[in-house]
Amino acid sequence: MEQKSAVKSFGGTQGVYSHASETLSCDMNFAVYVPEGKGPFPVLYWLSGLTCTEENFITKACAQRVAAELGLVIVAPDTSPRGEGVPDDPDGAYDFGLGAGFYLNATEEPWSTHYKMYDYVTKELPTLIEKEFLVDAARAGIFGHSMGGHGAMTIHLKNSATFKTCSAFSPIVAPSQVPWGKKAFSNYLGPDEKTWIDYDAAALVSARPSDAEILIDQGTADNFLEEQLKPEIFAEAATKAGQKFTLRMQEGYDHSYYFIASFIEDHLRWHAGRL
Amino acid sequence: MEQKSAVKSFGGTQGVYSHASETLSCDMNFAVYVPEGKGPFPVLYWLSGLTCTEENFITKACAQRVAAELGLVIVAPDTSPRGEGVPDDPDGAYDFGLGAGFYLNATEEPWSTHYKMYDYVTKELPTLIEKEFLVDAARAGIFGHSMGGHGAMTIHLKNSATFKTCSAFSPIVAPSQVPWGKKAFSNYLGPDEKTWIDYDAAALVSARPSDAEILIDQGTADNFLEEQLKPEIFAEAATKAGQKFTLRMQEGYDHSYYFIASFIEDHLRWHAGRL
Repeated sequence: MEQKSAVKSFGGTQGVYSHASETLSCDMNFAVYVPEGKGPFPVLYWLSGLTCTEENFITKACAQRVAAELGLVIVAPDTSPRGEGVPDDPDGAYDFGLGAGFYLNATEEPWSTHYKMYDYVTKELPTLIEKEFLVDAARAGIFGHSMGGHGAMTIHLKNSATFKTCSAFSPIVAPSQVPWGKKAFSNYLGPDEKTWIDYDAAALVSARPSDAEILIDQGTADNFLEEQLKPEIFAEAATKAGQKFTLRMQEGYDHSYYFIASFIEDHLRWHAGRL
Repeated sequence: MEQKSAVKSFGGTQGVYSHASETLSCDMNFAVYVPEGKGPFPVLYWLSGLTCTEENFITKACAQRVAAELGLVIVAPDTSPRGEGVPDDPDGAYDFGLGAGFYLNATEEPWSTHYKMYDYVTKELPTLIEKEFLVDAARAGIFGHSMGGHGAMTIHLKNSATFKTCSAFSPIVAPSQVPWGKKAFSNYLGPDEKTWIDYDAAALVSARPSDAEILIDQGTADNFLEEQLKPEIFAEAATKAGQKFTLRMQEGYDHSYYFIASFIEDHLRWHAGRL
């Protein structure tokens, strides 16, 4: 692991690191905020949305202040494999390929060599974080935005003993049923939609609700709300399955980091209070 | 004035606007945060540093939360004239020309046609803001970062009846004596160094201290501290002149927006408490 930068922020350190990922067969960057103090600290994994890298969250979400106060480590990985040899959308579209790993393990060529973000986020990255930083792995949560909200919810539902708490901003809750998800899943996973269910929060929650309560914030002025996000699909499935959740429709907020910054404190307190 | 974007943030609105500036003979963008409520609100002008536009502060400084709480409007203009016909550094350097207006009125060709940022920030922009937004012009302050800290301090010292409060992060306090300032001033103002004094906070404070107390935060790990920033020059001149000021050397902080975000709350409360 190589430290690419380390900047003091609210008494702690906002770092960016690089390592050679075995899972993804490429070099990967990730950001880690470590508060002042000795630790071990509870750790939150933040999964970003389409087009993002490890930089967006740490520059725009204004999370460090509350992470410092609560004593939380926050890890923010990149959103896809990167680098020479990693295939991208043939048209360079923003919603597939680079910057759009969808936190799954691709099974189709040419994606399956590198696009293993599910294994990366659930296995290789936490192992590295636990080795290199003063975190208490027994107190880990996961959260994210949009595609990363999808990632956080699906990873929590399948690994709730590891990622004990979960929240999301504007998540894609039912990727199997919306254009972003259909495009990504048909390419990464192939045409058999039965294989998609394993990465679909609304489908997963029906089969395996968690014991945690999931917090979802969704802006009502979000351009993607009606076509891509559809939180009501998750709400209905979760209600039926007995999954505890809080869905807050935030009046007038959009899909941007201004929305995330406005409510990040609530999310951090939500996780810290449960870990 | 044209609204380019408006996004809900902490209950208020983070907008970006464009207008045809007479002073600068070009179109200019500026950002305005307006908190929830009826106003009129006290207004702070934020001046950014080298290479910045109107975007850096609003995406990275995490100021909206406290501005919303305190009921402050924050105006963040671009840092230089822009657009076709506006001359730039012949080598495209970051520290002169576009993105580096130094908040002065250039007198030398070819700069003097467009580079009138002093008049823009002190006259045209406030007039527009007072016409278009619910601000109380009698409660106005100014603050900024690096080149913008220089701008804020010089503008306050010369206009303390209008910009009543002043604070700065990592300001260039003595531009006449450091490489950034010498390059900019010799080009914008010509070789006669007597003309530079009017834009040099350390020189100005000797001649015309203000009644306000100026707050300065400076990181000790700032790469530019020793060569370009030199807060001790201002401290010495201010002490001699009887200018009230608080200079806080912040251990381990650098020149970035992570530093600004870490202390922006202190600055906003400082201004709000005095306006």
